[in-house]
Amino acid sequence: MKRTVRIGLAQVNSTVGDLSGNSDRVASFVDRAKENDVDILAFPELVITGYPPEDLLLKKGFIDSNIKTVNDLALRIDRPATIVGFVDASRRGIYNAAAVIYKRRVRGIYRKKFLPNYGVFDEKRYFISGEKPRVFRFGNIVFGIAICEDTWFKGPPIATMARMGAGLIFNINASPYHMGKIYDRERIVRSRIRESRVWVAYTNLVGGQDELVFDGQSFVMDRSGNIAASSKAFEEDLLILDIAEENLVKGSSGIEDAYITNIAGPSKYQPKKPVEANPIIRPDPDEEVYQALKLGLHDYVGKNGFKGTVIGLSGGIDSALVATLAVDALGKENVTTVFMPSKYTSRESREDAYELAGNLGIRIIDIPIEDILDGYLKSLKDLFAGIKEDITEENLQARIRGNILMALSNKFGWIVLTTGNKSEMSVGYATLYGDMAGGFAVIKDVPKTIVYEICAWRNKQSPVIPERIITKEPTAELKPDQKDSDSLPPYDHLDQVLKSYVEEDKEPTVRDFPALPAEEIARVLRMVDLSEYKRRQSPPGIKITPKAFGKDRRMPITNKFKPSR
Amino acid sequence: MKRTVRIGLAQVNSTVGDLSGNSDRVASFVDRAKENDVDILAFPELVITGYPPEDLLLKKGFIDSNIKTVNDLALRIDRPATIVGFVDASRRGIYNAAAVIYKRRVRGIYRKKFLPNYGVFDEKRYFISGEKPRVFRFGNIVFGIAICEDTWFKGPPIATMARMGAGLIFNINASPYHMGKIYDRERIVRSRIRESRVWVAYTNLVGGQDELVFDGQSFVMDRSGNIAASSKAFEEDLLILDIAEENLVKGSSGIEDAYITNIAGPSKYQPKKPVEANPIIRPDPDEEVYQALKLGLHDYVGKNGFKGTVIGLSGGIDSALVATLAVDALGKENVTTVFMPSKYTSRESREDAYELAGNLGIRIIDIPIEDILDGYLKSLKDLFAGIKEDITEENLQARIRGNILMALSNKFGWIVLTTGNKSEMSVGYATLYGDMAGGFAVIKDVPKTIVYEICAWRNKQSPVIPERIITKEPTAELKPDQKDSDSLPPYDHLDQVLKSYVEEDKEPTVRDFPALPAEEIARVLRMVDLSEYKRRQSPPGIKITPKAFGKDRRMPITNKFKPSR
Repeated sequence: MKRTVRIGLAQVNSTVGDLSGNSDRVASFVDRAKENDVDILAFPELVITGYPPEDLLLKKGFIDSNIKTVNDLALRIDRPATIVGFVDASRRGIYNAAAVIYKRRVRGIYRKKFLPNYGVFDEKRYFISGEKPRVFRFGNIVFGIAICEDTWFKGPPIATMARMGAGLIFNINASPYHMGKIYDRERIVRSRIRESRVWVAYTNLVGGQDELVFDGQSFVMDRSGNIAASSKAFEEDLLILDIAEENLVKGSSGIEDAYITNIAGPSKYQPKKPVEANPIIRPDPDEEVYQALKLGLHDYVGKNGFKGTVIGLSGGIDSALVATLAVDALGKENVTTVFMPSKYTSRESREDAYELAGNLGIRIIDIPIEDILDGYLKSLKDLFAGIKEDITEENLQARIRGNILMALSNKFGWIVLTTGNKSEMSVGYATLYGDMAGGFAVIKDVPKTIVYEICAWRNKQSPVIPERIITKEPTAELKPDQKDSDSLPPYDHLDQVLKSYVEEDKEPTVRDFPALPAEEIARVLRMVDLSEYKRRQSPPGIKITPKAFGKDRRMPITNKFKPSR
Repeated sequence: MKRTVRIGLAQVNSTVGDLSGNSDRVASFVDRAKENDVDILAFPELVITGYPPEDLLLKKGFIDSNIKTVNDLALRIDRPATIVGFVDASRRGIYNAAAVIYKRRVRGIYRKKFLPNYGVFDEKRYFISGEKPRVFRFGNIVFGIAICEDTWFKGPPIATMARMGAGLIFNINASPYHMGKIYDRERIVRSRIRESRVWVAYTNLVGGQDELVFDGQSFVMDRSGNIAASSKAFEEDLLILDIAEENLVKGSSGIEDAYITNIAGPSKYQPKKPVEANPIIRPDPDEEVYQALKLGLHDYVGKNGFKGTVIGLSGGIDSALVATLAVDALGKENVTTVFMPSKYTSRESREDAYELAGNLGIRIIDIPIEDILDGYLKSLKDLFAGIKEDITEENLQARIRGNILMALSNKFGWIVLTTGNKSEMSVGYATLYGDMAGGFAVIKDVPKTIVYEICAWRNKQSPVIPERIITKEPTAELKPDQKDSDSLPPYDHLDQVLKSYVEEDKEPTVRDFPALPAEEIARVLRMVDLSEYKRRQSPPGIKITPKAFGKDRRMPITNKFKPSR
């Protein structure tokens, strides 16, 4: 019988700052792995602190507590050999690091070499780079540890570890989700495997943290670049896989003892109970986005201790999607909706909102805003005398609705979920303190065209969103006969221009989008620039695209740059 | 007669992204310097792009335009030799750089070595480090260029340049203001001078950019560490100084030709018209803060193209200070105030608000909110039946006021200035979408105790803030007989605890602040943590402390870390 090594990838949902809670969660996965005879178990990057801890990392008390947590945790772990992400410290600074725990002691530490400092990442703000290569001997095999970005470059540290005899690399990650990201990860890992002929066990966090969602989808790739096993997407999971030792043993070229840590010597081989592998599944693209939003919403509400949510329903597609997501993420008992009609609200809007609430089985409260609006207009009558109606009166309606939702939030402890999509956020087609008022902007990174796609996907699972909500023309209903298309290009064109300008940092022109007039493209870009001040005051929301607003795209408000349009 | 070299430091106010405007401004200072026979003229760091350009730096179109701008600018400059900060590019990446222009050509380029990536700085997100040391020969002297952070460390690049024969270093900066920062800069520069025995000509930007104010205060320090000349604070300035050549000539130890750029050979010495030196002035600390706020406000409003401002006056000290600042920064014709009484508003508040407006000579509009509040309460009556009044009703009042101000903003194009101070922002003693609603939060980084100090300073110049506003007890007037002290510790204690926790990242306990009960300190820290979500939606405001909220302090909202209190 061939000797095998049994590895485990623990894909856990940790919470930023919850050191003892995260440690308990690690310990419970260690117990499960031990029951299953796992030899080596890997947790994600910074599992102890949660990711990203941001400026908590500047607090000495936080760093000290995290180290104490790892040391206390070590006392609870006999076996398997367990790889745990935490923050290490020396007199020179702090490190994004991984401890290897075995038989109640920390046996060795690896420190991340490459620190990402782009997109949503600020690791050079906090960490210094680890310098020494290091591998670990466990029984008959030698393994290495790489932390996230370490795997993204040719050469060291992975090539070095392979040269030092490592046949297996545990690559521990906190890799945030965006659409199709899993394929980037597989491609990168496959490149390293081609160069170094190693197995890679890639483990990722799962769960929501403010604007980020970690999708899990941990996997093991063999040294031919094939996926040998894969974890679930968007939920916690323990992946277990047996690998024949003979596939992991490599000749080392001049390994220096200084750079090898012995975890355990060779031992008598004990056959293990067989384990069943997960099927390797990749979610459908629309489902993937939907699940990301659901998890991000669930965790933001749950980790911040809210009991319920409240959503303004307009009868339109955006609020319909947010209400549906809230029900799917939190249960219908945790969702209250409010319909707030004005004289511009159509009969269809009311019917559609009520039908949706009925389909979802959620409470809908009716609060007309006309009388309150009259109160404002009376107070402002003298000041506004002789000036014609404009955006002011439209925004007042949106802001009254915002105030009502916030009053319900204050009175009942519900978090207000806002309903703006990325297309609107991009061009500023939203009212600050109005429909932008709330605690979490669930779909703020979802372009309108993808809103339609994931609503269609959701309705295929069970039809909850009334068909008319999907087919009717979008309108803000803030003045007579208003349509989005009065002020915006068609969404399919708009979203393409926005993708080019916002996500790809290009300067789209009529050559790129011949279907749109040149002045229309220029107007869209100008709207994006001029709305920066609004976005700065937006609630957080879930990143699902390669470049979201927020930490991912840091534009000055005061900015006179005019692209050559 | 001794030969002298005449240097100029051009302390200009550039605007982020305004490449052609900034270039014109540089050209006009070059003309002034030429008229004054300046030999070498230095502009601040990234003067061409403005600082910080943030993610504009990710746009290829922006980088290309900035390089074209420098090349076009060079054609306009004959003399003096002119040092201009811009973004250089190579196939490897982009650099924070300085071009030396002389006789209509770019003669050489220095690339910044040390890239700050802490506090408000994100330079490693964008730039790569320059690697080669480089000095420049001009006539009989050799000078070096250092860019901002390059000066903050012992050793290279300054020590290298000195060894290569540079007797004078032009240190070009975009160094944001905080209280007393000038003394940090002098101390750092003096350390480099002690090590390398050079003169340092330190030039800094001036002006406001979103949350940052650059205070200017450029200076020249001789090789004994004495200030030889100094520019004005908080305004544009051209500093001119003659230095005897013999004081700048150093023996070089093995300078390699590859690392020296010849700008101009020795020439016949022409005596120059004498110039008058600025007096060396350091502003009084209270004046310094006041001027920083004034400039930051002036530039935010001006650079973003607003015509006027609108401020809600409560009769309290915070709104009094903001109104006074607005008048001083923008002129009384650009300030409108609004008094929005409720049934909790005292006679004193009304008197004080009107007296202030009278003293400042500004318009005050009276819009009672009671009727509008009744409208909301009527609409919510059934839902709130049997539940006692709480923060909900208080917030509604603040939000009605926010809506009224925003309606005036929308109708008349005025920017709403919010009036919250740093103490309130820290503990969340402010209403989101209420008194936090607006375009610019002028005093959001000013602790309440400093609000009092700078009001006292301002009244000493001319008494505009009614004495009672300064002496009466602070109150939000959102419920009967409310006082800030009902929910907050006395401000002098509170501000000390906040400084320790927020600015110094410590975990203050009763040992540090024996005047406060332990549970009171713990409650304050908890309030700071729990208000993160509010601050995330706050408008930008001016940094005046070593650590402001915003880019300077990046805390997660979802955060379960509990310091050992």
